[in-house]
Amino acid sequence: MTENKRNVEDMSIWEDAQQMLRKAQRDGVETVWDRLEQQTPHCPKGESGLCCRICTMGPCRISKKSPLGVCGAGADVIVARNFGRFLAGGAAGHSDHGRDCIEAFHAVAYGKTEDYQIKDEKKMLRIADELGVATEGRDVMDVAKDLADEFFESFGSRREEVAFIGRVPEKQRESWKKLGIMPRGVDREITEMMHRTHMGCDNDAANTMLHSARMCLGDGWAGSMIATEVSDILFGTPSPRKAKVNLGVLKKDQVNILVHGHNPIVSEKILEAVNEQEFIDLAKEKGAKGINLAGLCCTGNELMMRKGIPMAGNHLMTELAIVTGAVELIVVDYQCIMPSLVQVGNCYHTKMITTADKARFTGADHVKFELHNGMEQARKVVRMAIERYSMRNHDRVEIPAEPVDIMTGFSNEALLDALGGSITPLVDAIKAGKVRGAVGIVGCNNPKYKHDYCNVNLTRELIKKDILVIVTGCVTTAAGKAGLLLPESIEQAGPGLQEVCGSLGIPPVLHMGSCVDNARILQLAALLANEIGVSISDLPLAASSPEWYSEKAATIGTYAVASGIYTHLGHPPNITGSPLVTNLALEGLDDLVGACFGIEPDPFKAAELIDKRITMKRKGLGLE
Amino acid sequence: MTENKRNVEDMSIWEDAQQMLRKAQRDGVETVWDRLEQQTPHCPKGESGLCCRICTMGPCRISKKSPLGVCGAGADVIVARNFGRFLAGGAAGHSDHGRDCIEAFHAVAYGKTEDYQIKDEKKMLRIADELGVATEGRDVMDVAKDLADEFFESFGSRREEVAFIGRVPEKQRESWKKLGIMPRGVDREITEMMHRTHMGCDNDAANTMLHSARMCLGDGWAGSMIATEVSDILFGTPSPRKAKVNLGVLKKDQVNILVHGHNPIVSEKILEAVNEQEFIDLAKEKGAKGINLAGLCCTGNELMMRKGIPMAGNHLMTELAIVTGAVELIVVDYQCIMPSLVQVGNCYHTKMITTADKARFTGADHVKFELHNGMEQARKVVRMAIERYSMRNHDRVEIPAEPVDIMTGFSNEALLDALGGSITPLVDAIKAGKVRGAVGIVGCNNPKYKHDYCNVNLTRELIKKDILVIVTGCVTTAAGKAGLLLPESIEQAGPGLQEVCGSLGIPPVLHMGSCVDNARILQLAALLANEIGVSISDLPLAASSPEWYSEKAATIGTYAVASGIYTHLGHPPNITGSPLVTNLALEGLDDLVGACFGIEPDPFKAAELIDKRITMKRKGLGLE
Repeated sequence: MTENKRNVEDMSIWEDAQQMLRKAQRDGVETVWDRLEQQTPHCPKGESGLCCRICTMGPCRISKKSPLGVCGAGADVIVARNFGRFLAGGAAGHSDHGRDCIEAFHAVAYGKTEDYQIKDEKKMLRIADELGVATEGRDVMDVAKDLADEFFESFGSRREEVAFIGRVPEKQRESWKKLGIMPRGVDREITEMMHRTHMGCDNDAANTMLHSARMCLGDGWAGSMIATEVSDILFGTPSPRKAKVNLGVLKKDQVNILVHGHNPIVSEKILEAVNEQEFIDLAKEKGAKGINLAGLCCTGNELMMRKGIPMAGNHLMTELAIVTGAVELIVVDYQCIMPSLVQVGNCYHTKMITTADKARFTGADHVKFELHNGMEQARKVVRMAIERYSMRNHDRVEIPAEPVDIMTGFSNEALLDALGGSITPLVDAIKAGKVRGAVGIVGCNNPKYKHDYCNVNLTRELIKKDILVIVTGCVTTAAGKAGLLLPESIEQAGPGLQEVCGSLGIPPVLHMGSCVDNARILQLAALLANEIGVSISDLPLAASSPEWYSEKAATIGTYAVASGIYTHLGHPPNITGSPLVTNLALEGLDDLVGACFGIEPDPFKAAELIDKRITMKRKGLGLE
Repeated sequence: MTENKRNVEDMSIWEDAQQMLRKAQRDGVETVWDRLEQQTPHCPKGESGLCCRICTMGPCRISKKSPLGVCGAGADVIVARNFGRFLAGGAAGHSDHGRDCIEAFHAVAYGKTEDYQIKDEKKMLRIADELGVATEGRDVMDVAKDLADEFFESFGSRREEVAFIGRVPEKQRESWKKLGIMPRGVDREITEMMHRTHMGCDNDAANTMLHSARMCLGDGWAGSMIATEVSDILFGTPSPRKAKVNLGVLKKDQVNILVHGHNPIVSEKILEAVNEQEFIDLAKEKGAKGINLAGLCCTGNELMMRKGIPMAGNHLMTELAIVTGAVELIVVDYQCIMPSLVQVGNCYHTKMITTADKARFTGADHVKFELHNGMEQARKVVRMAIERYSMRNHDRVEIPAEPVDIMTGFSNEALLDALGGSITPLVDAIKAGKVRGAVGIVGCNNPKYKHDYCNVNLTRELIKKDILVIVTGCVTTAAGKAGLLLPESIEQAGPGLQEVCGSLGIPPVLHMGSCVDNARILQLAALLANEIGVSISDLPLAASSPEWYSEKAATIGTYAVASGIYTHLGHPPNITGSPLVTNLALEGLDDLVGACFGIEPDPFKAAELIDKRITMKRKGLGLE
């Protein structure tokens, strides 16, 4: 239980969070903030990356007294190995998600499922063309079969380059080849990282770091990008639409179901099921006024981007959403789902349902979703939720705050549409200095920060400076709750951005999707670079993950940097025990790939850092 | 420097090791034993698996005061995740080695290299047949192309089962499918493990452990097995031959070159180069009587099995081999190569050469071996070695001990040959109780043990009990130095084993190769099971890794257990912080896959444990 060592006002900037933190205290519910307190102080060896557990001659801890591990590895090698595996966890998350999407697409192509379809045939054919799959005069499903195979090849061992590398400016591709960081296969680079970091393999920290870049590029330009493109093909390419955010989207008098995780394959079916009349009738029979579906984290982003489904909250709100006492059921796929949700649910009447064999939770019910039975299982889950409505204790229900409106759905396709079909107007606006640059603010929450304080303030500061902000993942909800995802918020932007976004009728902060959708930002960067005829590293762009916590965020940061995008992080990964690795991250990479990391916990100072970088890049292009 | 806290007599059972440990002390050379002392005591959280560093909400340490990590994961989940990633490191090492072999085979098939050839065409065609690749009336190279593709498929995402699963008894295959542990793709299972162990994915320890089994089966029956089979195809299937072991194989008056690592692709070329007259002449010109090539660890095993090249030592002997002062150059590929070798080399005149981009060592020279230039690079390396001979300080040279003779080369093909072409005589001997069972003793050294004490004594105890012992990896050298790898050593065996091995003219301890060659033991187990018509778990077999240190050893143990072979380890992996994971390993798996782990540091007690298990299995088959 929260022992009041921190005031709830210091824990989150949001009224809905603070109110639920107070309720959690009253209800005796332990939250992530309580556990952080119990785990503080953290192990300094772990924090600096200086402990090694990769063989049983150890575990070893590097210190002045013992500068080498039993095998002879020193601080640099140990830190690089640990960081390499950390990044492998992130790359694997995204990429295995991508593989699941390919498998769904493959099942559709081969007629092995009736629960999924090709929703955006036009996009499918365009991508087939792009990847060299013959389309002319062919049956759509035959094209799909070949395209699925083509995607699978990016996860295999027979290619020199993964899919979508063709989007990268040629000069950069050449430099990646010279550096030995051209990704050959998504899984292959992950496996090779695990191999390199075995005892007695790669014992040169810089060399391990270069492979980190390669592996993460495989994630960005293939694992994640395939996940995004296939999701668009199967569920529709997002286009601008309105939605709502914060805990106020939960309904006092309805059956509330939350979807949580990352992959739309489960949640899209849940959405279909909740709209079936049979279930609406059943809910009414049970005394509810209907069924309300809301999202959390990236599965929430996926549904919001494509269907306008409301978003209940981001990472640190997931426990608090249950604390409302109004949630009948939370159905999850995978990644970033706190195991504590089972226990928090047990404090109320909230049932947790897992759906993927690769992500089971002790204490949750497992309803295995397979490609051939997605609808059937979704109906089962929705029925379970409705049945639980009668278990709700209405006296314990407290839903805080009024929902905030947002505009979502800015896929690159939608952005190009808004620009009149071409990237040129955006390039012109950048050249004219009306849009001085663009920054993707992405990633997570972390209870070490005042929740969303950095996410929101960095966003605000940047748009003031005429810098277009693109958000994905958990930053979306932060920006949305702050009212920044509406066309009206141009009032908070600098004059140039105000003019450009105002004329297009779009917000100065564009929601581009979930964390795998950071691949959309890569693609946008490549579009801009190719249009101007430069490398991505020449552009006035940056990325930021102010409140990150997850391995995936570090992986995203690494593919952004390796792709030439300067990346700000609120805090460093566990690498500070190695001066070599730290210097490489903060400076050395700039010489190799044209970008590096910057660390700054204060969002106002971070905005200055980023602004400085953008100014430098504009000067480099002769623009300022 | 060794501070004499342990006597050298307590550090190793071998005279050659003890003598070199004394020399290291005199020469001021730090060894792995010194560093172990500096690293002792080890972190108890690391040792028990109770620290988690997979996200930056932590790192977290589980204790009574803080039973949950910040995310809510408890001891079981954290231990299972850490162990899953540990095993992934091992699976990745073997499997990425396997991929390198396939790439070499692919390059040969497509005529992209003249430095490598198909040496065992008969085996290649047999394996093509086995895997359903058409062979009849086809050009050998066309078969090879298709077979290479077939191997690559086992690393991809499009199969339901990896290669060589067909060797597993059908009943077991069915049970693996039911348990959800049938490996689908080598890389895929590794990536999925990294995904599952990301924050908020698999939060059920038993479920993670099951995926560990699946991933390790992918290593055993495909990653490693492909490495073995392709190595045989490219470099010849081993057959019985004589060789020599221990540091006495180094020559006072010759240029000494050591090969170290795991993959024969580099070392086979080095071997060819040292036999070229040009280099022998050059060595003589420099004052040496010739060039002496010796092996270390598994690269040494590969060359010894196929070519009879002498073996200088196992894992703990690698530093000590350099301490002789007689080594001009050590050329390495990857895995288990202590980074300290560079520094030990610097204390003498020994140059370290790395050859693989995935395993560079700060301070070593890099001579990149590629498939098209293997011979050219090998010649470069041999020339470098010869040039260094003049730098040798002959006053500092001390080569201890006389080499011991051994018999090596027991591939399954060779064993079947020895048995007259069929496994039946071995089955008959088992049924008759002359050979009561068979045990594979495999893996490493670990300075936490008196070097090779357990490896040797366990081997001796088992053969006394009429249990056939098969050795691979670093145990080979231990058994060899103890004189157990000679037909004459049947004198130390029980009467039954003495009779059987005596009549066949083979040792009671058979050398089957390197650590990837543990796949040969799997295949042998499957051959026996299929011949008798039972599951592998019904057979009187066991595996043991008494002095293991490496992630690969844990992975091997896990695929052995998952394949139904009871596996003894001298010490547990870092899992003891979770009763659930520990109990699953020591008992629970027995119900699922018909085998489990047993932990016992004392080799005599371990022999009893194993004997008990073999007796039980014999009874189960109605044999005792």
